[in-house]
Amino acid sequence: MTEFIRNAWYAVCWSDELGVTPQSRQILGENLAVYRTANGVPAAVEDCCPHRLAPMSLGFVNGENIVCGYHGMEFDRDGFCESIPGQKNIPRKARIRTYPAVERYNLIWAWMGEQKETDDELIPDVHWLDAPGWTTVTGSTRYECNWLLLVDNLLDLTHTTFVHQSTIGTEDVANTPITTEFSGERVYVVRDMKNTAPSNLYKRIGGFDGRIDRWQRIWLEPPSVVVIEAGAIPAKCDRDGADREYNGFDTRVLSMLVPVDERTVEQIWAFARNTELDDAHLDVDIQKALELTFKEDADFLAGQQINMERHPHKQMLNNTADAGVVKTRRLIERWIADDLRRAGAADL
Amino acid sequence: MTEFIRNAWYAVCWSDELGVTPQSRQILGENLAVYRTANGVPAAVEDCCPHRLAPMSLGFVNGENIVCGYHGMEFDRDGFCESIPGQKNIPRKARIRTYPAVERYNLIWAWMGEQKETDDELIPDVHWLDAPGWTTVTGSTRYECNWLLLVDNLLDLTHTTFVHQSTIGTEDVANTPITTEFSGERVYVVRDMKNTAPSNLYKRIGGFDGRIDRWQRIWLEPPSVVVIEAGAIPAKCDRDGADREYNGFDTRVLSMLVPVDERTVEQIWAFARNTELDDAHLDVDIQKALELTFKEDADFLAGQQINMERHPHKQMLNNTADAGVVKTRRLIERWIADDLRRAGAADL
Amino acid sequence: MTEFIRNAWYAVCWSDELGVTPQSRQILGENLAVYRTANGVPAAVEDCCPHRLAPMSLGFVNGENIVCGYHGMEFDRDGFCESIPGQKNIPRKARIRTYPAVERYNLIWAWMGEQKETDDELIPDVHWLDAPGWTTVTGSTRYECNWLLLVDNLLDLTHTTFVHQSTIGTEDVANTPITTEFSGERVYVVRDMKNTAPSNLYKRIGGFDGRIDRWQRIWLEPPSVVVIEAGAIPAKCDRDGADREYNGFDTRVLSMLVPVDERTVEQIWAFARNTELDDAHLDVDIQKALELTFKEDADFLAGQQINMERHPHKQMLNNTADAGVVKTRRLIERWIADDLRRAGAADL
Repeated sequence: MTEFIRNAWYAVCWSDELGVTPQSRQILGENLAVYRTANGVPAAVEDCCPHRLAPMSLGFVNGENIVCGYHGMEFDRDGFCESIPGQKNIPRKARIRTYPAVERYNLIWAWMGEQKETDDELIPDVHWLDAPGWTTVTGSTRYECNWLLLVDNLLDLTHTTFVHQSTIGTEDVANTPITTEFSGERVYVVRDMKNTAPSNLYKRIGGFDGRIDRWQRIWLEPPSVVVIEAGAIPAKCDRDGADREYNGFDTRVLSMLVPVDERTVEQIWAFARNTELDDAHLDVDIQKALELTFKEDADFLAGQQINMERHPHKQMLNNTADAGVVKTRRLIERWIADDLRRAGAADL
Repeated sequence: MTEFIRNAWYAVCWSDELGVTPQSRQILGENLAVYRTANGVPAAVEDCCPHRLAPMSLGFVNGENIVCGYHGMEFDRDGFCESIPGQKNIPRKARIRTYPAVERYNLIWAWMGEQKETDDELIPDVHWLDAPGWTTVTGSTRYECNWLLLVDNLLDLTHTTFVHQSTIGTEDVANTPITTEFSGERVYVVRDMKNTAPSNLYKRIGGFDGRIDRWQRIWLEPPSVVVIEAGAIPAKCDRDGADREYNGFDTRVLSMLVPVDERTVEQIWAFARNTELDDAHLDVDIQKALELTFKEDADFLAGQQINMERHPHKQMLNNTADAGVVKTRRLIERWIADDLRRAGAADL
Repeated sequence: MTEFIRNAWYAVCWSDELGVTPQSRQILGENLAVYRTANGVPAAVEDCCPHRLAPMSLGFVNGENIVCGYHGMEFDRDGFCESIPGQKNIPRKARIRTYPAVERYNLIWAWMGEQKETDDELIPDVHWLDAPGWTTVTGSTRYECNWLLLVDNLLDLTHTTFVHQSTIGTEDVANTPITTEFSGERVYVVRDMKNTAPSNLYKRIGGFDGRIDRWQRIWLEPPSVVVIEAGAIPAKCDRDGADREYNGFDTRVLSMLVPVDERTVEQIWAFARNTELDDAHLDVDIQKALELTFKEDADFLAGQQINMERHPHKQMLNNTADAGVVKTRRLIERWIADDLRRAGAADL
């Protein structure tokens, strides 16, 4: 049984994808109907009406309430039933589970844990999505694998040398050892490449015609957001000086992972950059490159998942490049243990 | 484990759908090969040859016999093997299970229970299908749900207000309380709407331009036929007088439910009316309206089934409009208990 | 649980289907990556990298080695890891399972058993595939059934009368009793038809305009190759004299069965003939006839498999024509018992 961190915020979809028409989403194996009320407030309920168990995502919004589309039971924002067609008395137990939902950074987030543990401070920091000086290309990709395999994949970019040669990979990535840093409950995986050839995507973004310095710093923001801080500057320029802004660039590849169930994960992704902000052609090229890149990963991850299921007792053999992956997995185990403890406390 | 009533007749298909070419059908989780003999007599055998377990539905009819299409074993109407290619002695145990089959009301029916319990008196009464003074539009719809959910759906038309607004639903259906009557081993669910707006379908059939009186009386005919007796007349006309035939009309919506397995049900349906008997345009419009109507239901019922399976211990919350549904479910439980007792007796 | 004979050679694919790009194949429920090295040598490894369990079939060949396409681990022909990107020390346990592979008779074969039991003498004799004086039409067909059902099917051609009337079946096949011979660990199923009508395919090959003598001799070559030795000559000619070559012909229908898993089998098939060697039109006609023929079988076998799974305790009823099938099944049981004993010995 795979475990999830339940007392946490998960991205549900992009802000502009949500309207008054309810949508069905599966997160951590639970089914939600997500929607906006007439006032535009994001909301989420269990996708199951207490009356006959019909999906609420086939229903409709009435003001600030949601109505089951099968027999018309209507629930307010706290999940209490407000009306039943042809019936005067509303039983107290006619209630549906609601999920706290908020809108931040152009995303809709849902709290999957105990209601009373809800804490807005815990929304993962992905402020580059709507920060001045940055522009963003977005998309989403579905993987037929457990979410932890995708965390591994995004933390260890060694694979880009082999899997993504046409977009972001170069010979030097795999050959450059990583270092890891532990700080403030985060494991940072760092790879610095000096005087290296640029990848195709970096040539396109930076207009480089010679060798570059290139850096990557990656970490997992709980519960399931991977931040890749990466950038480049022509070789021998001063990375930390004023030169950087003029000749180099910075990017953030943000992956808001949504564990759908134990063998499926949705990656809501964004590529933010601080250069060429108004270049629509560049947007299109980045979009294509990232869609291809993640699709290439999806084949490997689906294959890993199948092999894991076929050989449940097979241990993975860790290489030195896996140091960041291994340390992050240990961190996740601790978060899950903390989460279970919190759920236990909530039960008292 | 869902239970079925086995000692009973189930509709297999419409008469004109069956010829000498065997067809494969699944009923109550059992696989049948159904066909007509050369004389046109409907017949059904287990879809599994005793020789190598090949499907008999891939075979062919030879006179009054059916022949396995794999190695040519031939069985008579009682299931006894009559010939084996290249072999003189026919072992007594070379026999296939047969199912009693009859043709009535333009339908083929199969008896799914103990052979010796077969009783033609138990064929559900749906005489409107070939009665003088009535004309019928027919079709069939498959639902990815247990048959009991479809029984519920057809007994409680409250949902038409929400699900079928474009065809048969109106605001007043959900708002009009039902009554239930118990008589002769049947539960009747009754809803009378006086001085109400006609639905789109009723406008089309009755040519109404004002308000109407509208009535519904629904019951389950064992094992799995739902009869909806419904009609309308302009408001303030005398429903029970001579006026009715001239200004109003009567309909029967007949649903011969075929439980395919525990999570699939086929609805062989007919809409019979006693008005505008020769209006082919009306036939087409009714056909379209009913196909749309049942397809709308199918989405809700598939969703209910998924939710039931995800939450096996979740109880449904009954509203007052569910009185007919609840009482009929209790009746079905008794029929199933009776059926098990009969099966037990047959085993002695 | 179906059993397989593991210490044996299985056909993987035709020689010309294999190049340096690794391919994924499932045999006896195990997943292999098969490929040729730069030198053209056929090779096979477990389709699972010991590092992160990614499929090796998504990797690539480097000289005589195979490289995992995810993070670049490289393995030599014995399965030992030779390099890990960005890492100097290679742990001894970094090793992948290899499968012995050879090329013979235009086929690639893999040994699925204990490495040290590998024995080239055990490659099934299908020398007609590249013997002078013979020409061959080839193909492959997938069946949704256990491999034993396909063995039964190929050993007992009674079914051709019913299933393959348009290609190879005639009335007389089913009506002519078979005999069986046991010799040298093989069961031979023999059917001789004198003065019989030719099938459509035989008319096409032999140009017969009258009655013929026709013979069939069929056996299973372990572990899973079925050889059908068959031919025809105009009736009353001397089958064993010089006439045969001039007026008659011989064929071998060779079925290299690959049990994919317990409910799937791949048939790599060839139709070899010793007549009209250069007739390309005849090749095309034979190809079409055999593809149709095996597709006809596939429907019956899939139906059998479903019935076997639905009725796990149902015994098949054997007819006299099943004598060869029954004796061969007994032989297979002994081979499987021997195989288990060999595996046990290898474990010591």
